[in-house]
Amino acid sequence: MKRNRVDAVLDRLEQMGLEQLVITDATSIFYLTGIWVDAGERLVALYLSRHRDCCFFVNNMFNLPPDPGVKIVRFSDTDPYLEMLAGCTDSTRPLGVDKNMPARFLLPLMSMGCGAEYVNASICVDGARAVKDEEEMEAMRRVSAINDKAMAEFKALLKEGVTEREISNQMKEIYQKLGADDLSFPPSVCFGANAAIGHYRSGNVALKKGDCALLDVGCKKDSYCADMTRTFFCGEIAKEEHRRVYELVLEANRAAEAIIKPGVRLCDIDAAARKVIEDAGYGDRFTHRLGHFIGLEVHDFGDVSGANQETAVPGNIFSIEPGIYLEGDVGVRIEDLVLVTETGCEILNSYGKDLEII
Amino acid sequence: MKRNRVDAVLDRLEQMGLEQLVITDATSIFYLTGIWVDAGERLVALYLSRHRDCCFFVNNMFNLPPDPGVKIVRFSDTDPYLEMLAGCTDSTRPLGVDKNMPARFLLPLMSMGCGAEYVNASICVDGARAVKDEEEMEAMRRVSAINDKAMAEFKALLKEGVTEREISNQMKEIYQKLGADDLSFPPSVCFGANAAIGHYRSGNVALKKGDCALLDVGCKKDSYCADMTRTFFCGEIAKEEHRRVYELVLEANRAAEAIIKPGVRLCDIDAAARKVIEDAGYGDRFTHRLGHFIGLEVHDFGDVSGANQETAVPGNIFSIEPGIYLEGDVGVRIEDLVLVTETGCEILNSYGKDLEII
Repeated sequence: MKRNRVDAVLDRLEQMGLEQLVITDATSIFYLTGIWVDAGERLVALYLSRHRDCCFFVNNMFNLPPDPGVKIVRFSDTDPYLEMLAGCTDSTRPLGVDKNMPARFLLPLMSMGCGAEYVNASICVDGARAVKDEEEMEAMRRVSAINDKAMAEFKALLKEGVTEREISNQMKEIYQKLGADDLSFPPSVCFGANAAIGHYRSGNVALKKGDCALLDVGCKKDSYCADMTRTFFCGEIAKEEHRRVYELVLEANRAAEAIIKPGVRLCDIDAAARKVIEDAGYGDRFTHRLGHFIGLEVHDFGDVSGANQETAVPGNIFSIEPGIYLEGDVGVRIEDLVLVTETGCEILNSYGKDLEII
Repeated sequence: MKRNRVDAVLDRLEQMGLEQLVITDATSIFYLTGIWVDAGERLVALYLSRHRDCCFFVNNMFNLPPDPGVKIVRFSDTDPYLEMLAGCTDSTRPLGVDKNMPARFLLPLMSMGCGAEYVNASICVDGARAVKDEEEMEAMRRVSAINDKAMAEFKALLKEGVTEREISNQMKEIYQKLGADDLSFPPSVCFGANAAIGHYRSGNVALKKGDCALLDVGCKKDSYCADMTRTFFCGEIAKEEHRRVYELVLEANRAAEAIIKPGVRLCDIDAAARKVIEDAGYGDRFTHRLGHFIGLEVHDFGDVSGANQETAVPGNIFSIEPGIYLEGDVGVRIEDLVLVTETGCEILNSYGKDLEII
């Protein structure tokens, strides 16, 4: 068990007026126990309580480390495992559950009356996960450093005639050579007008002179996720507007990063970047929020958007990724991960951001 | 909408004594509507009723085809979308929900009283999905044919000294060249003793003379998943027992495939393969069920195991994958997908199964 993290969750539980919580989300369980159980359809559950023993329910078929630091309840597929879980809870008190608990577990637990009522209390875990501890900060620095090195190798592959897919298919191997465990998400390699298409991944499109090449890429190392975007140009800047768009996106990226410190509202960070782009007349071409929290998942709970009035706190890690998308023409996005420090922020990506023509 | 599939689900709903069902699982929604909405954290829901209009709830941010054939309810992130969904249901009747509906949707729907009670009715959709229609059978034949061709290319890459990862990292590109859209799961490429490790994927281990090379691989095409395993040997058969194990697994695979036809219990298919291996004294080295259903997901609902007393029906597609694993030494598994026909079964994989020394 990661005691500091469990305590952070229990504190938040108390603030919600709750005493107990059942978590079935594998990522949150890893966060709290340090143990990955990839149980698929099967139940894996962590019961946390401010007054009772915490219990970790794991099917016999999954291995556990020798001293997991929490009471373990083992079961087989034929055991009444939901009854066993219900037997641990305080049926006279409200029970917090995680937002992802599937109906196949929640409905039976409810019909067994394992709590006085049932409350989505995910925010207790999500809120704790949004504030990284030192171990997590180090992991995020490590994985982002690999992403920086990888970006240089990806750039070196960009030549006229190469296809998006030829680049994206090589990425996993390059990441692994640099020490990463895996991709953190399917890479986006977008040439020319494809860079203006939201959620485009990669296709059989060849790079042409004058195209932009947008690379939105990330790897995983020790279970933590990197995420970075850079946009290059091939051979030349075909139109003056492309250069202008690039410079605006870069200015927006820097404007946002410049104001990040504890106490600043996340919506104001979004606004700082958006203002640069709006003032230049491209406001309607910046079609998404500025960023998202990241850690054990590429999209952790929390975002940097106009709707989020929460303030930044030390230990938050999120992306800053303004973009301008001109349909049928060009797309530019520049994305870093940033860690909120006591006095400002640490930019976790060091790969350069000045315009590069390759 | 795929009317025949919706009707199959409504029939099963009636057999359960239910009138209405809310589905939030993206794969089941694709199965019923032909529309993929990759909504992530956001709600996407299909309301099916035997007496009311079916409704498809989709956030404005996702595109839909021009004529989806079902009543569409659109909403934005700031709309009260769960209230809108609750407004469609019959609050005086039990409401079926899918097994994967997350607590963040289910708990609010329950507190709004959108049904008289709440029942996990996933089996209605899962049961329908387990019986493929002609369109699905064709898709499964197509994707399996690609997998057959790919296996020949993978085999050609196996040379002394090549690492597991060097092979697995090339697979996606080979699949795409052959017309597939993607991998259906991370490939397992296991050399020597690694082939005896359950759920091993691939590492930096080089192929040596005498090693087995177990390849458990699959691709996706038109949203349907392939899955096949073959085990080769490098250079020579190092021990007579390896040959014996291979021949036993092959005999088990064929013994199971030989008895498949409508009306045969799935547990008896498992038993047919297991008997071959048990009779030879390796029963405790065949450590998993014989197979799993497959279609839109690599592991669809349903399995071929000692616990499943359901009978095979025409249109079922599942894997037949016996194995023998000798820890620290060798692992052999031979896996095909089979389609249950009116009179027997069609083996969807045609890649040869006789022992190959490469």
